[in-house]
Amino acid sequence: MKIAVDAMGGDHAPEAVVAGAVAAARELHTQVVLVGPQAEVHSQLARHRIDGLTLEVSDAPEVIQMHESPGMALRKKRRASIVVAMELVRDGRADAVVSAGHTGAAMGAALLGVGRISGVDRPAIAAVLPTTGKTPVILLDVGANVDCKPHHLQQFALMGTVYSNRVLGVAAPRVGVLSNGTEEGKGNDLTAATTELLRASPGLTLVGNVEARDIFSGVADVIVCDGFVGNIALKVGEGLSLAIRSIVKGELVGWRGRLLKLYVAPLVGKVRRAYRRIDYREYGGAPLLGINGVCIIAHGSSNARAIRNAIRAAAEAVSHNFVQEIRSQLPALNAAAAARST
Amino acid sequence: MKIAVDAMGGDHAPEAVVAGAVAAARELHTQVVLVGPQAEVHSQLARHRIDGLTLEVSDAPEVIQMHESPGMALRKKRRASIVVAMELVRDGRADAVVSAGHTGAAMGAALLGVGRISGVDRPAIAAVLPTTGKTPVILLDVGANVDCKPHHLQQFALMGTVYSNRVLGVAAPRVGVLSNGTEEGKGNDLTAATTELLRASPGLTLVGNVEARDIFSGVADVIVCDGFVGNIALKVGEGLSLAIRSIVKGELVGWRGRLLKLYVAPLVGKVRRAYRRIDYREYGGAPLLGINGVCIIAHGSSNARAIRNAIRAAAEAVSHNFVQEIRSQLPALNAAAAARST
Repeated sequence: MKIAVDAMGGDHAPEAVVAGAVAAARELHTQVVLVGPQAEVHSQLARHRIDGLTLEVSDAPEVIQMHESPGMALRKKRRASIVVAMELVRDGRADAVVSAGHTGAAMGAALLGVGRISGVDRPAIAAVLPTTGKTPVILLDVGANVDCKPHHLQQFALMGTVYSNRVLGVAAPRVGVLSNGTEEGKGNDLTAATTELLRASPGLTLVGNVEARDIFSGVADVIVCDGFVGNIALKVGEGLSLAIRSIVKGELVGWRGRLLKLYVAPLVGKVRRAYRRIDYREYGGAPLLGINGVCIIAHGSSNARAIRNAIRAAAEAVSHNFVQEIRSQLPALNAAAAARST
Repeated sequence: MKIAVDAMGGDHAPEAVVAGAVAAARELHTQVVLVGPQAEVHSQLARHRIDGLTLEVSDAPEVIQMHESPGMALRKKRRASIVVAMELVRDGRADAVVSAGHTGAAMGAALLGVGRISGVDRPAIAAVLPTTGKTPVILLDVGANVDCKPHHLQQFALMGTVYSNRVLGVAAPRVGVLSNGTEEGKGNDLTAATTELLRASPGLTLVGNVEARDIFSGVADVIVCDGFVGNIALKVGEGLSLAIRSIVKGELVGWRGRLLKLYVAPLVGKVRRAYRRIDYREYGGAPLLGINGVCIIAHGSSNARAIRNAIRAAAEAVSHNFVQEIRSQLPALNAAAAARST
């Protein structure tokens, strides 16, 4: 198994990406292909001890920047790192892609390179989030599709269910619809129609509406929403955890704070571990579901550790063959949706 | 000044509400009218020492429950506590309402009782949230209106600006539009049209799109969104802070944890204070903006302290006369919107 890594994606690329790839190769024994401008990637690799590691470099002279319009950039930059990485998968020279770059560009490159699974209307970005329960929850879509129809959310529900079952090992994943309340009459037009459709969908276990405050409480294994709402939900979580950290840090300054720190190092460690459980950097990124292959989008501000974890997530996803499972369950779902709309 | 408090609103009513009202009367010297079934409220009051406190009871035999459809409940229950509380304000017998009950019912009762400010299309629920900056941010709408048009968000922006300026003391409040990214091309149809409209609006200082991760970082003083999205943003924050607390608590069990607790009580205090800054219960509730009066909606799970703080927030809001200011700034804003749409 071989993972293609977009060396130029992310706020701290290529340094952090190359360092993360080296860590994955060393610690996880993963075969990695770093995709980016050859000279630049090699000069980054030169800063590490890589003897005996299975690291390759695949040249891609161009880079898509975060501010670029993905459509335009993909038309102009045919040799961009994310495009070349997807082509490696298309050509069977890699099994998965990891990128911390422009999400829209990664989605576009995936569609151009490996394409959609036949029958999937819109691929989605799924966030794998920790809960206070035993298993993580999958929230999707978190950014690919800002305006969605009920049938799109129905497909998200199936893809999330398969990922939760195959990759995360949840026996019968419970599906919820993200809404502004669980009481009757809550929700908007989209959530009402989606709930009705999911109730009639084969292969799905619906638990109903899920409030945003319960995303992390383990009441559902898969939570569906449109990409605008999902992005808000995900980013509020990040913003809040950063704000708490900054507030806690602010409490620990000065001589009193330094003294406290000495006394309380063990607890600080525990609190840090608690934060880590809700820290996206520890969570190895978000799978792109609905494309003909495995692609993990890491967060733009990924550090080396986040990249290493995203590479591990990609390797695990490949080994569980969930793409084939989505492919085989989709026809029955689409038939149910078509039956309702006629 | 006199604050009408819905004694029957909230998960812990009437105990917590009455206790909070007593605390407000005792500690803040606020005049409070408790509205609810007379016998029940008096029996709760009997559990407190209230000699010398300015506490009245106004009888309201009915209660609107959380699961009820607000429209139906308001038609059937003409003597519900929230309805009677609003009537006290309408009749000049109270200056503001505080309720931790059904938000939709409170909004409905406000519209029936005191009505909308002339020219306001849709009143909104505004959340006042802490930031890592110096002043809190106002996020609105957080639940009243699940489907919005750009002009609604424009009015939210004005009402939030006036509240931020008058009640929170921000000199020139910066307005942001909650979106899934700040780059060009991000957002949905609503955010794009809203940004364009806000740019042409008198009396508003637009900073552009604001990502959800920046809600707490102080980049804007007022952030507008539709009520579905706002509810998600607010509830994710709550859910995450509860999840972190539960995780930290989980780390402190067993004899090792108990030992640690002894050593580290001072830090635990600091961490708790940090949490408190992002805890809605400390934040005294959300003002209802756009109605002809002052109404503060406290969270459903409010404890006595939260009710006390909501009463304080209501008293502060009354003393700053922001309703009159919204009334006087609205015509120019509506004229600008009308000019654009013709």
